[in-house]
Amino acid sequence: MPAIWILRLSHRVGRDFRVTTHLGLVGRAFGAKGMYYSGDKDKEMEKSILRVNERWGGEFKVIYTRQPIKLVNGWREKGVLIHLTMYGLPIDDVISEIRGLNKDILVVVGGAKVPSIYYSLADYNIAITHQPHSEIAALAIFLDRFYKGEQLKFEFSDAKIRVVPCEKGKRLYKGP
Amino acid sequence: MPAIWILRLSHRVGRDFRVTTHLGLVGRAFGAKGMYYSGDKDKEMEKSILRVNERWGGEFKVIYTRQPIKLVNGWREKGVLIHLTMYGLPIDDVISEIRGLNKDILVVVGGAKVPSIYYSLADYNIAITHQPHSEIAALAIFLDRFYKGEQLKFEFSDAKIRVVPCEKGKRLYKGP
Repeated sequence: MPAIWILRLSHRVGRDFRVTTHLGLVGRAFGAKGMYYSGDKDKEMEKSILRVNERWGGEFKVIYTRQPIKLVNGWREKGVLIHLTMYGLPIDDVISEIRGLNKDILVVVGGAKVPSIYYSLADYNIAITHQPHSEIAALAIFLDRFYKGEQLKFEFSDAKIRVVPCEKGKRLYKGP
Repeated sequence: MPAIWILRLSHRVGRDFRVTTHLGLVGRAFGAKGMYYSGDKDKEMEKSILRVNERWGGEFKVIYTRQPIKLVNGWREKGVLIHLTMYGLPIDDVISEIRGLNKDILVVVGGAKVPSIYYSLADYNIAITHQPHSEIAALAIFLDRFYKGEQLKFEFSDAKIRVVPCEKGKRLYKGP
């Protein structure tokens, strides 16, 4: 199974704390291996994601990069570069093709204003609707389509805590 | 087609501005009629969502409520009350049943800490994975499943501006 990584551009301390944390947690829950981020280095944001690994399992990584363009160029040599943008092609038109490549994927997610070079460098600029909404929702739908919904059943074998699904209320199972 | 509304609980000015805005914009882009919210009244947040209607079309509503429990109780008499929570039942197990009811839906989305009464009042507590991630992603996947992916093709007939999908770069169409 190809590995999926996220690149979150232009993170800003404070202002982007929650959106970037949500991106990381969606990535983790929906089967990505980790998230690179550029912009401001933010230890608190990193911790808020990694803390979830400790209790809920998995090895999702959060890695700061000062040189996102270099990362992107390096990635293009071995894998597929995808940029999520409302200006791109509809996901339903390209997702089968992308899955068929059977290559590792880097999913680039903006930031406030994405420099135009990312549109050029991307192998695929992909739209999750052509409406303005949320990079978090766009990432969720991208991973959902890539994994054909199977990510909703992912389990983390090393979790210390698990949900016991129930109709009303909250139930947790603690233990191996 | 049944109408879907969102109820965002316990909005906090400042801290929740972007997350609540994203919830509204995902709701709008993915076919919901509007969003109620409780907690702090926040004109700026309302504007940031309604501004999108002006350019991109549609009549998505944002309505403040001081009495979310009363709203929920009123809703239960005419429609279905859904609460998105990682503690609930897997969405794949219940979505067909919910669609089959053919009733208007109120989707309740937490807030920091959701009072237990919402778990009791909900007709369905639904989990989008049993992992902690993002209410924005959860709402997106719920609407996606309800509309069977058709929401990715929604168009707003009164839009002043539209995206022309393209492989590289950004193209907009302005006009009727």
